[in-house]
Amino acid sequence: MPLSTLKRKLIGTPLRTAEAFNERLSKFAALAIFSSDALSSVAYATEEILLVLILAGSAALSKSWPIALAIAFLLLIVTTSYRQTIHAYPSGGGAYVVAKENLGVYPGLIAAAALLIDYVLTVSVSVAAGVAAITSAVPILFPHRVYLGVFCIALITLANLRGVRESGRIFSIPTYLFIVSFAIMLGVGLAQHFFFGEGNAAAQDLVAPAQDLTLFLLLRAFASGCTALTGVEAISNGIQAFKYPESRNASVTLTWMAGILLTLFLGVTILSHLHHVVPRHGETLVSQLARDIFGTGFFYYVIQVATAMILILAANTSFAGFPRLSSILARDRFLPHQLASQGDRLVYSNGIIALGLVASSLIWLFRGETHALIPLYAVGVFLSFTLSQAGMVRHWLALRTSGWRRSVAINGLGAVTTAVVLTVIAATKFIHGAWIVIALIPLMTMGFRRIHEHYTLMAKQLSLQGFEPRKFREQIAVVPVSGIHRGVVTALQYAKTLSPRVEAVYVDLDVEATEALRRHWESWSGGTDLVILDSPYRSVLGPLLEYIEGLERSHPDALITVVLPSVVPARWWHNLLHNQTAWFIKGALLFKKHVIVVTDVPHYLTH
Amino acid sequence: MPLSTLKRKLIGTPLRTAEAFNERLSKFAALAIFSSDALSSVAYATEEILLVLILAGSAALSKSWPIALAIAFLLLIVTTSYRQTIHAYPSGGGAYVVAKENLGVYPGLIAAAALLIDYVLTVSVSVAAGVAAITSAVPILFPHRVYLGVFCIALITLANLRGVRESGRIFSIPTYLFIVSFAIMLGVGLAQHFFFGEGNAAAQDLVAPAQDLTLFLLLRAFASGCTALTGVEAISNGIQAFKYPESRNASVTLTWMAGILLTLFLGVTILSHLHHVVPRHGETLVSQLARDIFGTGFFYYVIQVATAMILILAANTSFAGFPRLSSILARDRFLPHQLASQGDRLVYSNGIIALGLVASSLIWLFRGETHALIPLYAVGVFLSFTLSQAGMVRHWLALRTSGWRRSVAINGLGAVTTAVVLTVIAATKFIHGAWIVIALIPLMTMGFRRIHEHYTLMAKQLSLQGFEPRKFREQIAVVPVSGIHRGVVTALQYAKTLSPRVEAVYVDLDVEATEALRRHWESWSGGTDLVILDSPYRSVLGPLLEYIEGLERSHPDALITVVLPSVVPARWWHNLLHNQTAWFIKGALLFKKHVIVVTDVPHYLTH
Repeated sequence: MPLSTLKRKLIGTPLRTAEAFNERLSKFAALAIFSSDALSSVAYATEEILLVLILAGSAALSKSWPIALAIAFLLLIVTTSYRQTIHAYPSGGGAYVVAKENLGVYPGLIAAAALLIDYVLTVSVSVAAGVAAITSAVPILFPHRVYLGVFCIALITLANLRGVRESGRIFSIPTYLFIVSFAIMLGVGLAQHFFFGEGNAAAQDLVAPAQDLTLFLLLRAFASGCTALTGVEAISNGIQAFKYPESRNASVTLTWMAGILLTLFLGVTILSHLHHVVPRHGETLVSQLARDIFGTGFFYYVIQVATAMILILAANTSFAGFPRLSSILARDRFLPHQLASQGDRLVYSNGIIALGLVASSLIWLFRGETHALIPLYAVGVFLSFTLSQAGMVRHWLALRTSGWRRSVAINGLGAVTTAVVLTVIAATKFIHGAWIVIALIPLMTMGFRRIHEHYTLMAKQLSLQGFEPRKFREQIAVVPVSGIHRGVVTALQYAKTLSPRVEAVYVDLDVEATEALRRHWESWSGGTDLVILDSPYRSVLGPLLEYIEGLERSHPDALITVVLPSVVPARWWHNLLHNQTAWFIKGALLFKKHVIVVTDVPHYLTH
Repeated sequence: MPLSTLKRKLIGTPLRTAEAFNERLSKFAALAIFSSDALSSVAYATEEILLVLILAGSAALSKSWPIALAIAFLLLIVTTSYRQTIHAYPSGGGAYVVAKENLGVYPGLIAAAALLIDYVLTVSVSVAAGVAAITSAVPILFPHRVYLGVFCIALITLANLRGVRESGRIFSIPTYLFIVSFAIMLGVGLAQHFFFGEGNAAAQDLVAPAQDLTLFLLLRAFASGCTALTGVEAISNGIQAFKYPESRNASVTLTWMAGILLTLFLGVTILSHLHHVVPRHGETLVSQLARDIFGTGFFYYVIQVATAMILILAANTSFAGFPRLSSILARDRFLPHQLASQGDRLVYSNGIIALGLVASSLIWLFRGETHALIPLYAVGVFLSFTLSQAGMVRHWLALRTSGWRRSVAINGLGAVTTAVVLTVIAATKFIHGAWIVIALIPLMTMGFRRIHEHYTLMAKQLSLQGFEPRKFREQIAVVPVSGIHRGVVTALQYAKTLSPRVEAVYVDLDVEATEALRRHWESWSGGTDLVILDSPYRSVLGPLLEYIEGLERSHPDALITVVLPSVVPARWWHNLLHNQTAWFIKGALLFKKHVIVVTDVPHYLTH
């Protein structure tokens, strides 16, 4: 099967530009689509808090719910702050746009770098956590988690290359299944505890403290739990997808999402505390909790499937966000412009492929472990929160519309709070992996600048303003020949149409071969003189390039065209049997940076 | 440091063709140069016999000397047979030449395949054994033997790329050091045994039998020992290097070499038997023997150094043989002709590099263990012995010069004996690795045929006999443009010198960009019409190729030249920021196999 057919099978037939369309979403559908990223963090955020606290022994686990309360409070601040962004930027207020418009290009680029990293990690973390939900239920798959993760990402990538329509109806199933099943689990779990006093099954797992319960450790646990906030900004990027009135509907949906997230996150944390669940290698906290509450029966599997599904869905949202942001950056000339154009299925294929590759490599490098990836995750998220809200403060200060003081206060509180949290995360998670992201963001920002510089300089150098095309008095055609055959004769013929001055050039490597060529030349050259170059060191390229340079020097007003007779073999492997001299000549001429035109006159072999 | 400077430092400045020269060798010098390969096998042949016998317990080791006697007898037959080849082929009678001339092309190619494999394995086996001599003396190097081996091969490769003059004086040092030091060791060892009754130091190493001492095992031990004969043919390949009378001198040298080889090989085997040395992982047999006889003192190190040096020298001989044979095969069009030409240091650089790479990979794959490589080694050697001597039989039968009956008898005995040994080796070593070589030889032979076929067919397709160059009534120049800039203007200008009919073609991907181009076109196009192609699927290539095909169909008598305005960035990484559309257009046109001339008009960016 040829490669193009394989591509069609996997990706589908091309779509016409005219087939692009936009579906407007109801609040109910939008909640499902935009909240999968935020809600799915319920699957791992509590566990990440406990994994830090357990270092101070199982007694320290009781500190989980005050930490969760602090995070819930943080969520309220961020949500309130983002509600303002939604109203101020009804066309979509991503951190890059807000920061660039209000704070300047550099803060915008820093926000962009943070967001791109965030998108990549959303995929890696969500898929790792989704695979953990699956392997918790089916432990024999546990050793294969890296392959499972990479396989999942490959599937999502492929689906997105085909172009996933964000169809509200289908996408709302996992989200609502997740919300409903978790709500039931929380209800039943709390009821068991308060009415029947059950839920101490796991109490025997006592863990001795490895270190003291310091303030630093508490802050580290808090920092880990802050991953619960990832994805909160999603709605503010997608306002245009809502039905009229867009901003109002988006704002209401954001409030709903925050409420549900808060309930589920606090619920899971409190329930884990009440049921004395201790994080364990090989099984997620949610899986343990569900087993504890329902036993390993039908409803346990519903919880695991719902968890896995919403996490995969969360990963999928990045496959819309990352390519969209890359294309905006590419159009602003901060990324290669290949990222700016849509592929034949009307999606930004290059961005999708890049995201799939990078996210898979992370899964591979971090051995598919959610816990290992978490320290990298929250830095980018909170950096973009901070920049976006600081941008909003500047926005209000510049506009001074009615109620601007209140708006400044709200966004200011958001910016300051998230900046403080960012510092906490960076400090407590630094050695665990946050340093990677902290190092990467300035590097990426510098990369954006370099790319921008190149495009700007190129545009200047290609600009027609004041351009005086160079005039040449004559043309000289140089035909390097390796002997005399059909390909050479055709090339000589072509060269003669270019110019009355054609020079066939041959490099003498072997006395006998040169003699033989001399004898046959007359009858086929059609009057073209043969220049024979000496090559004491048996190099073909050297004497040829020297000759061409000599011509340039002696004819400064002439335009030189090198006409290459190229014999094209019928099969790819036949190329290995040829010298590729033509290719080397082209490369060497490019390297010289003189304006020399190179012409390929092909002669095709048929077998 | 630029790459070319690095190359000059490593390889040296180019040498002129006129600097090639041939030094004629005395018998004394020739013995040193040509016998290193054969003599060096003394370092491992006995050990390989014992490594098989030990499977039947240490008692079975006593069978080593009858086996060694059988091998010595075989050596006499092969030597006598090769003396005849030397006289019949004074210009050099390699197995490829002899088999091809007398038995036909296919047997010749089989011999060539066997020889090439033999050369590669000589390098791998000799270097592995040389490294083993070093690590026996300096055990802390043992875990690094693979790196040591690869490093040795890299050094030899580099030395040969510089061009090692086979200077008799320097090269005779390791060989004569080896002969003399081994002779002393044998003398002292035998004296200790017979006069002082010493030498039972290692007798305590009793090994229990793992299997019965079957005939098959004895044959396997014999097959392993046959590696002692590798390299015996070297002199017959290099007769031209001897002083006058060449054949006579070569023949005398061969006899001397066989005598020395026989003495050393039998000596080491008998001494190992008398001293009850048992092969051991991590230390070679010769090292144990030398320690046993001299203690770990000065003379022990002399033996180890001499062994390592002659083995490295043996590996080095393949670096002359392999590239020489490859170049002969390439000139006969059985290998890519890149192997036929000498590099700028007057050596066949491509063959040298190929040998270095393949031999290093073998060291890597077989973890630097001589014992693991041995089963692959002898098959090729004995196959080429058999073919070469069978060829000699046909030679005498065809010529019927005086004494031809005796000659037929000698070469016939040689051919039959080596054929029998070949069968024994193939059968007893098959599962231990000989199958690889047995599978490889027909594959390589087929490869030679395919390559030959390609060159022959190509020559026919390029032949000028009866060639009628195609006549074109007109030229059409097509200039694909991506906008209007300096590069495009220059390309349009060039296209106009080709033909009065120039078509600038633009693919419409974006309504706004197309409108902008239309507005600016007039003022810079110099009257060339702009053809705008529709692209509903946003592909640039598709519509462009379709357009060109349409032109071809509507103008069957026209020669189409595609003039590509190519913008060449100043730095390599800038290429990543460009679409490479020009490259894709060229690739697609090549693939179509229509005669369309492609012209690059470069515009260089300066930063």
